[in-house]
Amino acid sequence: MDNKIQIETLNIGIKNKKHDAVCFKIPTGSKTVMVTTKNRFAAAPVILSKKNLLLSQPRYLLINSGNANACTGKIGLNNSIKCTNYISKKFGCKQNEVLHFSTGLIGRQLPIDTIEKKIKKHKFTFTSSWLSASKAIMTTDKFCKCITKSFLLNNSKITINAICKGAGMIEPNMATMLAFISINVRVNNQLLKSLLHQVTEDSFNSISVDGDMSTNDSVVLMSTGENKKINFTKKSSNYKKLSKELTLICQDLSKMIIKDGEGATKAISINIHKAKSKKEAKIIAYSLANSNLIKTAMYGSDPNWGRIVAKLGSIDNVHYNPDEIYLKINNMTIFKNGVQSINCDLKLLNKLMKKREIAIDLYLNSGKHRYTVLTSDLTHEYIHINSVYTT
Amino acid sequence: MDNKIQIETLNIGIKNKKHDAVCFKIPTGSKTVMVTTKNRFAAAPVILSKKNLLLSQPRYLLINSGNANACTGKIGLNNSIKCTNYISKKFGCKQNEVLHFSTGLIGRQLPIDTIEKKIKKHKFTFTSSWLSASKAIMTTDKFCKCITKSFLLNNSKITINAICKGAGMIEPNMATMLAFISINVRVNNQLLKSLLHQVTEDSFNSISVDGDMSTNDSVVLMSTGENKKINFTKKSSNYKKLSKELTLICQDLSKMIIKDGEGATKAISINIHKAKSKKEAKIIAYSLANSNLIKTAMYGSDPNWGRIVAKLGSIDNVHYNPDEIYLKINNMTIFKNGVQSINCDLKLLNKLMKKREIAIDLYLNSGKHRYTVLTSDLTHEYIHINSVYTT
Repeated sequence: MDNKIQIETLNIGIKNKKHDAVCFKIPTGSKTVMVTTKNRFAAAPVILSKKNLLLSQPRYLLINSGNANACTGKIGLNNSIKCTNYISKKFGCKQNEVLHFSTGLIGRQLPIDTIEKKIKKHKFTFTSSWLSASKAIMTTDKFCKCITKSFLLNNSKITINAICKGAGMIEPNMATMLAFISINVRVNNQLLKSLLHQVTEDSFNSISVDGDMSTNDSVVLMSTGENKKINFTKKSSNYKKLSKELTLICQDLSKMIIKDGEGATKAISINIHKAKSKKEAKIIAYSLANSNLIKTAMYGSDPNWGRIVAKLGSIDNVHYNPDEIYLKINNMTIFKNGVQSINCDLKLLNKLMKKREIAIDLYLNSGKHRYTVLTSDLTHEYIHINSVYTT
Repeated sequence: MDNKIQIETLNIGIKNKKHDAVCFKIPTGSKTVMVTTKNRFAAAPVILSKKNLLLSQPRYLLINSGNANACTGKIGLNNSIKCTNYISKKFGCKQNEVLHFSTGLIGRQLPIDTIEKKIKKHKFTFTSSWLSASKAIMTTDKFCKCITKSFLLNNSKITINAICKGAGMIEPNMATMLAFISINVRVNNQLLKSLLHQVTEDSFNSISVDGDMSTNDSVVLMSTGENKKINFTKKSSNYKKLSKELTLICQDLSKMIIKDGEGATKAISINIHKAKSKKEAKIIAYSLANSNLIKTAMYGSDPNWGRIVAKLGSIDNVHYNPDEIYLKINNMTIFKNGVQSINCDLKLLNKLMKKREIAIDLYLNSGKHRYTVLTSDLTHEYIHINSVYTT
């Protein structure tokens, strides 16, 4: 078992009674990489973990829910260092071999004395499951998010374990998303970094509930190297297969986040086609995904194409000819040649849009590039959840 | 009376029975300038009016509500030309001396035959008031928006008349805002353009309900030149006084739009101070103004400063030191030195935030520039209005 990741879920005194922390024990020889929030107010544990990862390969990860340790200044950073110290002392490793991640309320200090006592006292057996870990890191998530998948590569069984938390947004003082993923094959550090960036770009970075970026977002990928037989190089078919499987898993986790989005009743995929560049396609996709007028129309199953066209028209510095674009909703052509399409049957479309999944396809006809963003609708429940007095 | 703007409100067959059109008769010798939407799908009347204004000084304006004549292709443009033709034939002027403006549903053709009959048949007396004009251009506005103000300049009485329509957003297929303003002094064309740009930038362009830009937005300023005694040059104190009064009026109209914003219960002014440049201050102000998490917190009177700080932190390419910024809500310091301020009393603040006006003041301490955006909260009523099936 020593060459596998081992897990302990426990209570460290942030939440009442429930498990509010996870400790991952990473086998020696593993490689760990991560991507984190670009927010200028990145939380203390994010700052610390980035620093530690530059110094050492991590042996342990400590994740707590219920408190984000963000906007907590020097005390907050010191508390994060203390947390990693408690773990390193407990298991006899260096402080910088421990990474710390937090999710929960912003602006409050961790109950650090309680955490110290709880960790000291706790008898770690490292027999918890990935599923229990996915439960312990939940905040306002309505369901836990855990995927395990195995497949064959060169006749070897490859296993990916992945968990994440997030309801697609910064909660009322909560932080958005954390993900922890392991693969049981050996990939060198440089390639592992490149793999994580690519996978994240095509999954967690392609979803949007309200366009806000949290102070705590982190995605961690651990390559444990139990299986040393397979060689991965950037252009090998093995690498492509691994990258594809990992992307699918992370896209499924992303869909779970969208479906758990606060108050969401529908998942909407916004697909921009034939753009001049991927960058332009992405700008347009996110502009539409974050339009309240479009999101409320989706909620009401309203085939209100005027809002989509007007939003597109308001975006600066993107290339298309207004007379040459066309727009489909759930595969029905709605807008073409600058006017409502003759194939557009709004009453029928209204019925089609009552499904839980809606596809908006916009063809710019100015190039070859495409981009997809997954988003949710904007609902009464969203307003309710986010306007409640939380302090 | 011939040197004053004269007004006729009438029904041209778009709305049932109610007045749905206004005709302005502009005295000869007047100068008219306008700013319009930058939307790539600008409505047909906007395209036509921009073209006509390049060719002639307008003698008549025709404004209709109930139909935006946007996304209507060549037929739509032709219909707008027809509308101006009906007016020019009726009054014996050139077609390009008539401007046309529309607001209402997107994507539908004007009932052009009915409009022709109605205009031909109508006996114009030009005895309507600015107030009745402000009512005839309403769409989903809950109240009409009309301001008349007089003041002395060099012992002459100067009068500004201004009306606008708009509920701060693109309605379910409706277009956002139109404004028509007259001043009874003579200002040369070049200076009048510069005046309108400055005034618009500091009023109508500094409000946001949901960050969307309509296909029909237009602001028209007419200088009728009844009073020829006062000379205006860019640096004269007379010009400064005129500019100041006009800005105040347009800011008041902007506030009316925000307060009429769909479902809005509060007006929120977002004031960015001490930014490195005006451009950066503006980017930050709009990012905060369009954050659903901030807007819902305001609705719930929730002093949830974590959302404001996290949103700020997510904005690229703006300059500040996270440890040096500070944040006030309704004049109470909330966040300073990277942590919650010791002066912050969240319970008291929750009470203060129940007022109908909220001020968010963010000090970046990286320069001398400031920018203010006025916005509204995001409410259940907004979702209700905008999710209703409209086609």
